[in-house]
Amino acid sequence: MRILGIDPGSRATGYGVIEVCDRRLEFVCCGVIRVKTGQSFPERLLEINQGVCEVIEARRPDRVAIEEVFMARNPSSALKLGHARGVLILAAMQSKLPLAEYSARQIKQAVAGYGNADKAQIQHMVKAILSLAKSPSHDAADALAVAICHANYFQADSGFG
Amino acid sequence: MRILGIDPGSRATGYGVIEVCDRRLEFVCCGVIRVKTGQSFPERLLEINQGVCEVIEARRPDRVAIEEVFMARNPSSALKLGHARGVLILAAMQSKLPLAEYSARQIKQAVAGYGNADKAQIQHMVKAILSLAKSPSHDAADALAVAICHANYFQADSGFG
Repeated sequence: MRILGIDPGSRATGYGVIEVCDRRLEFVCCGVIRVKTGQSFPERLLEINQGVCEVIEARRPDRVAIEEVFMARNPSSALKLGHARGVLILAAMQSKLPLAEYSARQIKQAVAGYGNADKAQIQHMVKAILSLAKSPSHDAADALAVAICHANYFQADSGFG
Repeated sequence: MRILGIDPGSRATGYGVIEVCDRRLEFVCCGVIRVKTGQSFPERLLEINQGVCEVIEARRPDRVAIEEVFMARNPSSALKLGHARGVLILAAMQSKLPLAEYSARQIKQAVAGYGNADKAQIQHMVKAILSLAKSPSHDAADALAVAICHANYFQADSGFG
């Protein structure tokens, strides 16, 4: 089973693909969809959607997992993030892929065993879990963490957890 | 010139199409994309996107105008609305249509001459401006109001305002 994890952002959207082989997790690819500066917000949404559609087409995941958004401290950036998340969710739906959503706390707990883990800890743990030679960028590591989180929940659901 | 106006909503999205013939505005069609109850939020986003894509394909507008969203009193519903608005904006961008955004105040001002006009006043004025036999529903009237607002701004821009 191949899982695409997405860390949504209106400027930089991280993505990470992992393969679940029995109980082992294998790294497939990761990256960041970074919108060009000087683009309008609608143009950015188009680019974010196209970017993730290209990843889906090239890597053919079986499932998609995406981080939830909370209103947090900055309502205006949460609203922008909502738009970006909308077009990312749409990409999964249009590709007819099952979609799961996890909170930041669930993701951190799954990867670092601690719901308040910071970005550096997540990077470190993702590198260790997937036996990577070097740390992925923050956005890509967060996306791989979402995928790892989904793999854990999925395996737990199937009675092997 | 044919304008599609959109009043975004995560449960009901109004749409309205008008034709600008010289200085006259003619009604083409209007309606509401209402998502089925019991659907998941991702399924709703897909349905909203498909609904407006069908309108674009059937009515072939030259431009799209959409209402802006403000955080207002309920941040959580604004976030949902952000997702819906994201997939609506994406539909316009994927159809390569120019997109304009107007605040609720600009729309009310354009249609009713008063930035704090209520829904009933908007319905009444839309009916009068487009010489409709009966009032469209609130959501459809709001969408037609967005289209009328865009027609006004557009005509003003071309030096005829």
